[in-house]
Amino acid sequence: MEGGDHLAHERNKAEFDVNEMKIVWAGSRHAFEVSNRMSRLVASDPVFDKSNRAVMTRKELFKNTLRKSAHAWKLINELRLSDEESVIFKYFMDQPGFLDLHWRMFVPAIKGQGTEEQKQKWLPLANKMQIIGCYAQTELGHGSNVQGLETTATFDPQTDQFILHSPTQTSSKWWPGGLGKVSTHAVVYARLITNGKDHGVHGFIVQLRNLDDHSPLPGITIGDIGVKFGNGAYNSMDNGFLMFDKFCIPRDQMLMRLSKVTREGKYVPSDVPRQLMYGTMVSVRQTIVSNASVAMARAACIATRYSAVRRQFGSQNGGIETQVIDYKTQQNRLFPLLASAYAFRFVGEWLKWLYTDVTQRLEASDFATLPEAHACTAGLKFIAKLEGDIKGKGVKNQLKNLCYIYALHLIHKHLGDFLSTNTITPEQASLANNQLRSLYSQLRPNAVALVDAFDYTDHYLGSVLGRYDGNVYPKLFEEALKDPLNDSVVPDGYHEYIRPFIKQHLRSARL
Amino acid sequence: MEGGDHLAHERNKAEFDVNEMKIVWAGSRHAFEVSNRMSRLVASDPVFDKSNRAVMTRKELFKNTLRKSAHAWKLINELRLSDEESVIFKYFMDQPGFLDLHWRMFVPAIKGQGTEEQKQKWLPLANKMQIIGCYAQTELGHGSNVQGLETTATFDPQTDQFILHSPTQTSSKWWPGGLGKVSTHAVVYARLITNGKDHGVHGFIVQLRNLDDHSPLPGITIGDIGVKFGNGAYNSMDNGFLMFDKFCIPRDQMLMRLSKVTREGKYVPSDVPRQLMYGTMVSVRQTIVSNASVAMARAACIATRYSAVRRQFGSQNGGIETQVIDYKTQQNRLFPLLASAYAFRFVGEWLKWLYTDVTQRLEASDFATLPEAHACTAGLKFIAKLEGDIKGKGVKNQLKNLCYIYALHLIHKHLGDFLSTNTITPEQASLANNQLRSLYSQLRPNAVALVDAFDYTDHYLGSVLGRYDGNVYPKLFEEALKDPLNDSVVPDGYHEYIRPFIKQHLRSARL
Repeated sequence: MEGGDHLAHERNKAEFDVNEMKIVWAGSRHAFEVSNRMSRLVASDPVFDKSNRAVMTRKELFKNTLRKSAHAWKLINELRLSDEESVIFKYFMDQPGFLDLHWRMFVPAIKGQGTEEQKQKWLPLANKMQIIGCYAQTELGHGSNVQGLETTATFDPQTDQFILHSPTQTSSKWWPGGLGKVSTHAVVYARLITNGKDHGVHGFIVQLRNLDDHSPLPGITIGDIGVKFGNGAYNSMDNGFLMFDKFCIPRDQMLMRLSKVTREGKYVPSDVPRQLMYGTMVSVRQTIVSNASVAMARAACIATRYSAVRRQFGSQNGGIETQVIDYKTQQNRLFPLLASAYAFRFVGEWLKWLYTDVTQRLEASDFATLPEAHACTAGLKFIAKLEGDIKGKGVKNQLKNLCYIYALHLIHKHLGDFLSTNTITPEQASLANNQLRSLYSQLRPNAVALVDAFDYTDHYLGSVLGRYDGNVYPKLFEEALKDPLNDSVVPDGYHEYIRPFIKQHLRSARL
Repeated sequence: MEGGDHLAHERNKAEFDVNEMKIVWAGSRHAFEVSNRMSRLVASDPVFDKSNRAVMTRKELFKNTLRKSAHAWKLINELRLSDEESVIFKYFMDQPGFLDLHWRMFVPAIKGQGTEEQKQKWLPLANKMQIIGCYAQTELGHGSNVQGLETTATFDPQTDQFILHSPTQTSSKWWPGGLGKVSTHAVVYARLITNGKDHGVHGFIVQLRNLDDHSPLPGITIGDIGVKFGNGAYNSMDNGFLMFDKFCIPRDQMLMRLSKVTREGKYVPSDVPRQLMYGTMVSVRQTIVSNASVAMARAACIATRYSAVRRQFGSQNGGIETQVIDYKTQQNRLFPLLASAYAFRFVGEWLKWLYTDVTQRLEASDFATLPEAHACTAGLKFIAKLEGDIKGKGVKNQLKNLCYIYALHLIHKHLGDFLSTNTITPEQASLANNQLRSLYSQLRPNAVALVDAFDYTDHYLGSVLGRYDGNVYPKLFEEALKDPLNDSVVPDGYHEYIRPFIKQHLRSARL
């Protein structure tokens, strides 16, 4: 390693096998290997460079995302990556874009809510990306309250079409990713009206743009909702708005697995549970736990490594200062987050397992299982499997410590609730706090190895402070020098706006 | 008002005189009038437009800040604004830049730590901005631990000069605002060494750049530390780095009010308290309470207005939905922040008063007053003054409610500490919670008027969601349409990166 490993002394302290922990974190040896291979494939390809993302204009960033998406799709095909590998590959690209919405919402919505005929017609096009789709549900005035959506889809028996219409400004679709500039199609949610009767919100496949020149079709107004907070961040995504002015689609573009509209305009519900309509959204939401784990893990990884590099105060007679990570106040900030990242990881894996299982049962029209009972059984099964998978005593001890830290930290955080309900006594609270501090000391020598176990590449972390090798200070300088402001010694604007100060002959008497 | 006032019904509900509250918030009728006039002066001048800040490149944003600073200086002189007015004017410009550091740190450091001769030499130049200064204390490896700074200033009796030197990479000055690209001078903090003895950290006036062509002087390496988090945000500031390679300055550029070095290299401390050396930093830190109040007030203003506009759930039979601000869960998020903004405002005003008073005593060499006792007396005096200033019963009632909400919310937040120390009983905790909910109901009709009392212009808030007139949805559209991505219907990159998907003839067998 260039410049050596500045955190080697920390890594040598670890009391467990970090390679074994990597497999536990990933979920299985296979999952670890795929993740490890894909993350390195992305990191080694210059097209996926993220380093100048914060200094790009919105347009440059957006074009750069299009380039990355096209390159990713090319690689996925050339290297014949499996579906599993492709998902992980896109994940490590770490740049939100239309691919996410197409694969994670548009395709699943058709799969979950389309009839067999609809799937046969649309999925081959979507799978080859000859059409690019998004998921247009949220409106300017209506987010969580899906039942409040205002967009209408009125069946016209004369033409055998649905007329999509946005009756108000608040009914404009607002926020869907991939909508603003890229998608050719969308699954649009609208109130179904037949014979003057409102049947509530249903999904429709709608073509938005001309496939020849990408211009919006007549009756469709569409665009990007503008810049979002953060450098880079979600600005790589074209979150969009969409309004319909009496825009017509054929009747067979209503997603009809859950309910149909006949040629005569009769509304016919099927016996498939209506919950499936929200299956796509539920699928995305179950991943939020995993995503929260990743966000915490990335932050904890950067903060832990930098806290081991950074020294402040505590020196005797000008000697070396104390590593920040050795302060209990810092440990109390850092270690509960590290423990939470692990906790959320396992809960996220369990939810994914549960979701897949329930979905497969629903697909097989097995609606009998009581959801709560099933969830509990599945949870116990998952824990048993996890415990069976973990062989090393060192790894087990670490997970036990993290689990106790997570629990005791929550008690500490919500102590008022525990005490006011007499769930614990003040004496027990005090003991719990002492135990928490003692667990921090036990975790301390393992901290850097515990974040190494996430197996994140420096590319994925995208942080100088969180570099694997801990070589923070020289690299901060290198990064600083890359800023466009450092292109020239004298900044643009000097002659117009700085020099006049220095060379002024002010007439103002006050000065 | 164009389009009418969508929050008029909220404003009509208020049970106090908002104009009187504006004066209480500002501190006095005079302070209100200055603040009101300056904020409107800034808001009405197109040079101070902030609307496209988030889509500018770093270089554009930086040049734009230079332009604003030069324009502000021109206006301050042309309009002969007083010092008080100038400070408020720059504050409402709301774009961090070198003016802040020059006026708030460079000039005060010379005033506080310079001898009479030094003040006579440097202050006229600084006051006319014929030199532009910054405050170079923090180093790459040393922030809060000022005593750990590594930069050295070694007295050379041969030449009667100090030799400034950065012995390591971690000793580089790192973060000072205005340093990277603009400042011609800096007050630099370095370890003073005479006759081989280290006398600890002292301040020095150092010229950094050539006054003719702005190039860094030989022996000085200088630049910008690169992009910081956020759209726009602190990226308008040239936070910089600085390294010295045996750079010499005359002996009389050490700030010598607190201690001197003689021609022979003898170190002579004066009887002026050494705390004054940190006076500049303390001055900036006391403003942090006020700044925290402003940050909370801006956020609370935006969130309160939008919570009154936004409706979600709670409709009966398709009727109008409930205003988000009417949910207790939302009130519990919002109202304690609103109360904190008010609490921090008064504490900040008190600190400013205290700081000014103590500084004046120190300047007059009155070191006798016991700081703690004095602070308490001053605090009581301040409260008495504040209570005397408030005439209206309505305003008094609102402040009382906010004060109780602030206190009860803190009890709620730290309930574990109160209960585990038996400071309160679980029954009292429960009563406190009921009372808090009841106070929320009392505050509710006054919420919008309470944030109106901050008297913030829409320019200063810079938020569509927080607009005074509540006309949120149409204006969100207007703003979205301004995004550069919406300049063209078909985005840049379509032909290279999107069209090939749609028109593909993939050779891959997998597809």
